[in-house]
Amino acid sequence: MKVQITASDLIQMEQRKRAHLINSVGGFKSVCLIGTVDKIGQTNLAIFSSIVHIGANPPLISFIMRPDSVERHTLANILETGSYTINHLNKSIYEQAHQSSARYSKEVSEFDATGLSTEYKANCKSPFVKESNIQIELEFKQRIDLAINNTIMIIGEIKNIYFPEGCMQEDGFLDIEKAGTITCSGLDSYHLSKSLARLPYAKV
Amino acid sequence: MKVQITASDLIQMEQRKRAHLINSVGGFKSVCLIGTVDKIGQTNLAIFSSIVHIGANPPLISFIMRPDSVERHTLANILETGSYTINHLNKSIYEQAHQSSARYSKEVSEFDATGLSTEYKANCKSPFVKESNIQIELEFKQRIDLAINNTIMIIGEIKNIYFPEGCMQEDGFLDIEKAGTITCSGLDSYHLSKSLARLPYAKV
Repeated sequence: MKVQITASDLIQMEQRKRAHLINSVGGFKSVCLIGTVDKIGQTNLAIFSSIVHIGANPPLISFIMRPDSVERHTLANILETGSYTINHLNKSIYEQAHQSSARYSKEVSEFDATGLSTEYKANCKSPFVKESNIQIELEFKQRIDLAINNTIMIIGEIKNIYFPEGCMQEDGFLDIEKAGTITCSGLDSYHLSKSLARLPYAKV
Repeated sequence: MKVQITASDLIQMEQRKRAHLINSVGGFKSVCLIGTVDKIGQTNLAIFSSIVHIGANPPLISFIMRPDSVERHTLANILETGSYTINHLNKSIYEQAHQSSARYSKEVSEFDATGLSTEYKANCKSPFVKESNIQIELEFKQRIDLAINNTIMIIGEIKNIYFPEGCMQEDGFLDIEKAGTITCSGLDSYHLSKSLARLPYAKV
């Protein structure tokens, strides 16, 4: 016998409780740090758990942001520079990564506030997180305003991928568990992974 | 020293290899079965790993589908009935769930093909997966065609949530690890989770 929560229960639920429930009911999520910089060199770092694969050719990744949150620094910087980085979390840095969600003012870099280190590579304007094992450089491609609830979807194209040696398998699969990447659920729960299996391509 | 894959490497990469890499580089993902039915009662079940939380009030979840794939049955059914279900995977059913990705014809229900059971609840037209521990009923709200690569984003509103007793904490957090929910990475890799911690709301 299962517990049932109806639409009516959700409407009547205290706001913070509903946020916890709805954020956790969709399943485990990708959780990453997005690194950006503004035109005068002020860096910003924000944690996101709404990253999703859009397509492989061209290689596109999206994420969703609330317009009314601290994440607006991320949006403003992406629109200014056209550049951002996505950095995986691991168990050594998830507490610092979570701390980046505090409402720091624009003048404070979350790199300084959390103790995570900037890393600059090649011609990428935006900082990577040095302590992150898997790092992706993205170029901003499209902003889609979702009128249904005023959130914003940002789509970017992958320009460079960096990962530890020995983590990519012959067929292109990147073993993110081997690289120490963690997952999250809800607003504040972090989890290691334990591989069950890779399954063969399904045929009728 | 990390391995670097550039945009130029990605363009030259064999198509299937690139798909494996790009699907795994975004981090761990929610992986669920979406259950639908057409107007003459033919059921359909398809596995998706692009489910993402859009907002809590109203409670919205989105997923991305390729227009040229078997998933088109899911889209056609959602547009016909306005209804679908999202069902979490667990370690007892992930192999059957993966098998639902084979290219079955419209006349074959993936419920029959995989041996998973339909479950009907209340007034929901679409079938749930009986063997799934966390089940969500959704009402179709919006289709957004992503011109950048011809994928389609579907947004739905949560109408009912079903989960095992003892899995929701006082503050609304749903302990999906306790419910046995698993995660995936790439196109075919399934993983259990192991909780690290829930962290307190971050303050400056």
